[in-house]
Amino acid sequence: MTDPTSRLDRRLKPILDLLHRHELVDGLVRQQDQPRKGLVEGLVHRQHLAQLGNALGKLHAADIAHLLERLLPDDRMLVWSQVSDADGGDVLWDVNDTVAEALIARTDPQRLVAMCRRMDPDDLVYVAELLPADVRSRVYASIEQEDRDWVDASKRYPEDSVGHLMTPEMLAVAETATVKETLKTIRRLGDLPDQMDRVFVTDARGRLVGSFALTKLFLHPLRTPVAQFMDRDPASFYADAPAARTALAFERYDLISAPVLDAKDKLIGRLTVDHVMDFVREEAEEDALLREGLRGDEDLFAPALFSARRRWLWLFVNLLTAFVASRVIGVFEGTIEQLVALATLMPIVASIGGNTGNQTVALFIRGLALDQIKKDNVGYLVRKEIGIAAFNGLIWGCVMGAVAWLLYGNPRLGMVMAIATLLNLVVAAIAGVTVPLVMNKLGRDPALGSSVMLTFVTDSMGFFIFLGLAAAVLV
Amino acid sequence: MTDPTSRLDRRLKPILDLLHRHELVDGLVRQQDQPRKGLVEGLVHRQHLAQLGNALGKLHAADIAHLLERLLPDDRMLVWSQVSDADGGDVLWDVNDTVAEALIARTDPQRLVAMCRRMDPDDLVYVAELLPADVRSRVYASIEQEDRDWVDASKRYPEDSVGHLMTPEMLAVAETATVKETLKTIRRLGDLPDQMDRVFVTDARGRLVGSFALTKLFLHPLRTPVAQFMDRDPASFYADAPAARTALAFERYDLISAPVLDAKDKLIGRLTVDHVMDFVREEAEEDALLREGLRGDEDLFAPALFSARRRWLWLFVNLLTAFVASRVIGVFEGTIEQLVALATLMPIVASIGGNTGNQTVALFIRGLALDQIKKDNVGYLVRKEIGIAAFNGLIWGCVMGAVAWLLYGNPRLGMVMAIATLLNLVVAAIAGVTVPLVMNKLGRDPALGSSVMLTFVTDSMGFFIFLGLAAAVLV
Repeated sequence: MTDPTSRLDRRLKPILDLLHRHELVDGLVRQQDQPRKGLVEGLVHRQHLAQLGNALGKLHAADIAHLLERLLPDDRMLVWSQVSDADGGDVLWDVNDTVAEALIARTDPQRLVAMCRRMDPDDLVYVAELLPADVRSRVYASIEQEDRDWVDASKRYPEDSVGHLMTPEMLAVAETATVKETLKTIRRLGDLPDQMDRVFVTDARGRLVGSFALTKLFLHPLRTPVAQFMDRDPASFYADAPAARTALAFERYDLISAPVLDAKDKLIGRLTVDHVMDFVREEAEEDALLREGLRGDEDLFAPALFSARRRWLWLFVNLLTAFVASRVIGVFEGTIEQLVALATLMPIVASIGGNTGNQTVALFIRGLALDQIKKDNVGYLVRKEIGIAAFNGLIWGCVMGAVAWLLYGNPRLGMVMAIATLLNLVVAAIAGVTVPLVMNKLGRDPALGSSVMLTFVTDSMGFFIFLGLAAAVLV
Repeated sequence: MTDPTSRLDRRLKPILDLLHRHELVDGLVRQQDQPRKGLVEGLVHRQHLAQLGNALGKLHAADIAHLLERLLPDDRMLVWSQVSDADGGDVLWDVNDTVAEALIARTDPQRLVAMCRRMDPDDLVYVAELLPADVRSRVYASIEQEDRDWVDASKRYPEDSVGHLMTPEMLAVAETATVKETLKTIRRLGDLPDQMDRVFVTDARGRLVGSFALTKLFLHPLRTPVAQFMDRDPASFYADAPAARTALAFERYDLISAPVLDAKDKLIGRLTVDHVMDFVREEAEEDALLREGLRGDEDLFAPALFSARRRWLWLFVNLLTAFVASRVIGVFEGTIEQLVALATLMPIVASIGGNTGNQTVALFIRGLALDQIKKDNVGYLVRKEIGIAAFNGLIWGCVMGAVAWLLYGNPRLGMVMAIATLLNLVVAAIAGVTVPLVMNKLGRDPALGSSVMLTFVTDSMGFFIFLGLAAAVLV
């Protein structure tokens, strides 16, 4: 009867204590190195492992996943070795992809099959993509025909589509059914799954014709036909629609679950708020990492060499853009030689452009994500951002110009500084507006790469404007 | 029977068409300027307004909010003028704070009171904070005693706490109740609110003793006591707990609703997944803006001057850090004068440090948010990040050193470039680890400001290391 996450901390403590007794980890390492180690030591080790398995058995699969994600590689494998086959599949579903891949790579195929064959088919679809081909086909061979059909069907929908997120578990009755018949159907099913707040109603061809809240069954007499009180225009989604749009609808209309239809309006599955919420959170977290050129499912505890290589492409892209910006400076080396203060002041012009441009980028990315930027208002927004940039450029350009004048006692240097600041802020606003809009137009996620492109433009143009003006006016 | 968000686009079209007929907006403007305008014109205008009000009446409050957020200021006020009193309160709750403030500032107090007195008390708590004091007290005076007590109680909890997000609408029965008595209670309430998936069970003193899924009522005979099948250890939250932790629990255990308790374990409210989901999404969006120094609820369509001033503090902070970094260069002006290539190459060293440091910052912010970074593993992570930086610094430092050597035919310049790159990457890793951890330790959100601090360190240190080395070795 307390906050389940703080309760979790208490429950994890004995497990972490077990792990911190050196014998345990040492035991495992030594077991591999010296196969014939002392009998007593082996017994102690085995006893600790049993305690660990016991403690894990009492945890929710999502909690085991959380524990695995925050353990160092050795401890992680040790804990994973004690996870039961019954929990294993759900744990693989819950951990992030990189951790799941690492676990799968070091798990016996036999054990993987035993774990995955017990999973709900909608979760299996997701985990199956990470399994080696032979394990995957052995799992498929071992599940029921009905589940296999489901897996085949949902694999046909693209990743990040509704079809990929939906579940086969739903409650559907014919449009001719009464309250009594619906209650019978429910009792036949026994315990209903979570997030089951609505009953879907279909016609003779399996097409969705309505839905009603489960609670309606409490309020109407047994012989009332459900068609009498059902909602004839319920929110529903096509399986091939992008999941991101669904998230907006779930949030805006406070949905718990909604029917999923194929292209012929046939009811084929159900989308639930927990899957949608997972999707929203994962997307938001991934975006924060992707913006910095990291993979969205980056594993904090992956081996250093592995992580280092993953970051090379980004390092390379950044070096390249920095190198190009630096070549712009190179063109003006003669000017800098004559007035070395330019070298000191130029990073300020570039930096302030990058910072304000990234504000514009962030605003436009959010506006696009919330569907607020449309043809009828984009012109106003562009004019507004450029207006703000010009206004702020005027004020802060004068401030920085005055500072430069005072520092170097050169009024013309101050003027160059002021004009360059103003111009680079306007360039930053134009680039900050253009880059996300173009990315969006090209069907790419503007959150990825917009910031690099923007900084590249504001750096190069900042150096060019400042040094070019100086070359024309000062030397 | 289609995706509700695409359906919305169709429903908004006639409204936008109405707005785009110039008479309408002109009409409003002229009405203010020339009070006694032609009778016919006035009639046409009034007819259009009636059409607008009609169209708005068919929309969900959340859709009206979405429409208002994406309209330019004039159109926004026109649409808002036609929103009914019944919808008005919910619309104010749904729009973001900046837009709500703008609407409230230009709305007749009488109308505000009429709108707000109809709101659910949990939503009212939120909107009331934005109302002028006199309107607020008139609203409070006009609502029922029971609701006023609720508002008073929940105001006592800090913002971003569970108490602030909870709703009074819940279904609670005594621990002695049977299925039949529970059904009676439900029928007395009539239609149940959404997100009502569980019934809470309390003892004679109002303390929570259990809860059960509503669907259990279908599966047990009428005279079964609920105590027989209720869950005796349900997930629950204290009202003063931070909402962010709850979001983690809702997501991890797929909750729809959960009981909220006061410090004495008394059941005082209910937390629902839609409020938690709103909270998660708003936080994620706000973070993206706050990272760039914008207010989280920045209104895209606010007047330009207003937006410009809002960005001043950030501009000032950034100018200050850029200025300090520039003074570091100033110290080495003599060195640069002797070898102007240094001015060309120095931004590369600073920029690569900033980029890789921000990767580390992003990883640590996520790790902290997901509760994955703890005392027992932080040492490993710090060593790992520094190791990656050293390794990548060695490789890419050599590459950049070779490029500098080739460009300027100066092997010692190449060496300085290589060593400076390596050292600045290590500095970036150390700062990237330290800044978020210290911010977190100080109880501040590491997402805010970490990136500015980091870039400040990598710029200043990058210039210092590179130019300092050059001064020692080259000239």
